[in-house]
Amino acid sequence: MNKQPISILFSVGTELTEGIILNTHFRFLGAELRGLGFHTRKAIQIPDDPRVFREELRQAVAAGELVIITGGLGPTSDDLTREVVADICSAPLRFQEDIWKDLVSRYSSRGGKIASTNRKQAFIPEGFRIVPNGVGSAPGFWGTVGECVVMALPGPPAELEQMFLAEAVPLLHSRFFGGRERSAQVLVGSALMIPESLLEQALQEAAGADEAMLWSTRVAYDRIVFTLRAAQADRRGRIFARLVERFGPVRIRTGDIQPSVALYRELDSRNETIAFAESCTGGLASKMLTDIPGASNVFWGSVVAYSNQAKMNLLGVSGRILEERGAVSAEAASAMSEQLLLNTPADAVAAITGIAGPEGGSAEKPVGTVWISARYRRGGELCKGFHFRGNRDAVRRRSAVAAIILSECVLRGEDAQLEY
Amino acid sequence: MNKQPISILFSVGTELTEGIILNTHFRFLGAELRGLGFHTRKAIQIPDDPRVFREELRQAVAAGELVIITGGLGPTSDDLTREVVADICSAPLRFQEDIWKDLVSRYSSRGGKIASTNRKQAFIPEGFRIVPNGVGSAPGFWGTVGECVVMALPGPPAELEQMFLAEAVPLLHSRFFGGRERSAQVLVGSALMIPESLLEQALQEAAGADEAMLWSTRVAYDRIVFTLRAAQADRRGRIFARLVERFGPVRIRTGDIQPSVALYRELDSRNETIAFAESCTGGLASKMLTDIPGASNVFWGSVVAYSNQAKMNLLGVSGRILEERGAVSAEAASAMSEQLLLNTPADAVAAITGIAGPEGGSAEKPVGTVWISARYRRGGELCKGFHFRGNRDAVRRRSAVAAIILSECVLRGEDAQLEY
Repeated sequence: MNKQPISILFSVGTELTEGIILNTHFRFLGAELRGLGFHTRKAIQIPDDPRVFREELRQAVAAGELVIITGGLGPTSDDLTREVVADICSAPLRFQEDIWKDLVSRYSSRGGKIASTNRKQAFIPEGFRIVPNGVGSAPGFWGTVGECVVMALPGPPAELEQMFLAEAVPLLHSRFFGGRERSAQVLVGSALMIPESLLEQALQEAAGADEAMLWSTRVAYDRIVFTLRAAQADRRGRIFARLVERFGPVRIRTGDIQPSVALYRELDSRNETIAFAESCTGGLASKMLTDIPGASNVFWGSVVAYSNQAKMNLLGVSGRILEERGAVSAEAASAMSEQLLLNTPADAVAAITGIAGPEGGSAEKPVGTVWISARYRRGGELCKGFHFRGNRDAVRRRSAVAAIILSECVLRGEDAQLEY
Repeated sequence: MNKQPISILFSVGTELTEGIILNTHFRFLGAELRGLGFHTRKAIQIPDDPRVFREELRQAVAAGELVIITGGLGPTSDDLTREVVADICSAPLRFQEDIWKDLVSRYSSRGGKIASTNRKQAFIPEGFRIVPNGVGSAPGFWGTVGECVVMALPGPPAELEQMFLAEAVPLLHSRFFGGRERSAQVLVGSALMIPESLLEQALQEAAGADEAMLWSTRVAYDRIVFTLRAAQADRRGRIFARLVERFGPVRIRTGDIQPSVALYRELDSRNETIAFAESCTGGLASKMLTDIPGASNVFWGSVVAYSNQAKMNLLGVSGRILEERGAVSAEAASAMSEQLLLNTPADAVAAITGIAGPEGGSAEKPVGTVWISARYRRGGELCKGFHFRGNRDAVRRRSAVAAIILSECVLRGEDAQLEY
């Protein structure tokens, strides 16, 4: 496409240029802007240096149609974004009573008292408008410098990402692509254990005919987060419903949700517990679930039965199964989960056994072969075999996610046609 | 410092500007260049677009004393770095017989045949020199454009990082800081479970008097990687020895090494195995060890005894200890490791029990209170209590690392004065 508007990204902070912290904004904004229809021509990190900032920003507003600045909105004298933007458009900074009142009330609601240095955060350049911050303290602001839309957002990723999705997207959609602002809200969803190419294809099929429908995907560690954008809510909802129809309600979720959090909620709502028997994942499934604060409500414990001896000794799996069928087999996975259900009071269990590589594969059972069995004490077992591609990390990660998803399926009485 | 030479970083690739992959180069290079004495004025990501690349590079060589370009050195037509650098200095690209022979032999040693499109990777701009690639296929190159040193390195982080430390650092040190090139090699080490501020202070004390001694630190997930730079090898060695004296040989290591890899090697060299009993870490210590390919040689298995019931049921810890002393106590940790040693054939064991938060803390046992007991079948127990700061993730990560380090200590018969 030639008519994509040009976006330029700015991240401000000496902690970035000195390599003290990792910049994740370019990835997040790059993916979201691509989905929205922009072409990012440049993404620049600069230290807290007003001269460099001014010079680069001047160039950027001349070259781009959209400039997004992240960081530099804090209360200290290092935080330069307000001053530099005001300088670039020769506008004074104006104190915003609303922002100040909001800051004061946020601090006092946490039992704190706001410092007078925070007053700085209540100023924005004249002619600019506020971008509300639903998460942290300082708001962002946006306006135009010549022909270019300039938007300043805070540096903390949780604030930036929430503000971008909730506030910036409808605004940019309206401004650049003629959508009506109020209705151009996004629907954020998560795709769990769906290969990226398959999800893209399904989105294409579901939304392809609708020219005003935009979507983007962002591949995270254990899920793909997707955003659907259309003028009307019912059209977004229709596409979402088609995805659910195609992949089932366990794998297509509303909101940005990790598989482990989905399982946690399912167990918590039932007041039930789970235990895992992990071989190739070596504790990763348990780690994912216990990353969640409050996991002790739903997680009983696990056995990491890495060696065959541990499978026999800790779980009581019969040596004959391991010998005749192999440790990586439907029978071994099923025996592991059966024994775990016998030996613990957990309401649900899942067992994982596979070959994570790089060694240990054979022609019959190549690296990536994984068997998972999930059982529910009230009845039901799902036992599935997989051939995961990728390196050791990828095989282990996918195996743990698959065990978590199969656990949720067995609890909900859903089968899952998993395409791996 | 005002006389710091100015560095400018470039990362080239549409996969970066579209947010498909995360850029980790700016963090790595930013930290290393800071340690070396540079001031990074700007770090730019651009898509594979020759016009933008040329324009930005022209500006950068005019403004900086050092420009490092990462990416764009592959064999496809999208890979533009060679062409753009040659263009900027109006130099032709020259075929380098040596590079080509090296590429051909690398491919054939892996049983492959090189594609003719790879010939592209054997060209570098006239007047530039090769930066050898010890890890991957294509080398980098460096030379000067006007007054500015321009260095092009490949995009894959493993290649970039190895080449930068092994090749670029001595070269830059010599060129910008008057060190003798041959002797300005770096000593890379890892600090395991040492708080950053303490390490900085120890480096300051050990190296402070030596003005020609430079160091930098990079905080990774489970360790701090430090580099020592001095003209003579014996001076680097002396500083390193002082760090070992201060923190012990388990926590100060040569090279960039993860704690889990250090434990793996120790166990492997003894032909012995380990098992963990994990409570608050929920499988993370086991996950770290099994991240290593070949972990099955040294890892027997684990019990994730998250609930008290699991501690009794799976490990056989007496309910009386849990009741009288609490699940988070020296006695509970010690009983967990004792039971694990009784119930498994593993040569060494470590047990972890603590309060990861955010809930569950008390005045007596605040969030971050963790007890770890490591035992060796041939004799010896180390049982230590910690008060880790930070959020749930940080407490869990530090607890797992501490268990891994105490395991290595108990195997080696070393005590560790851990400052947490």
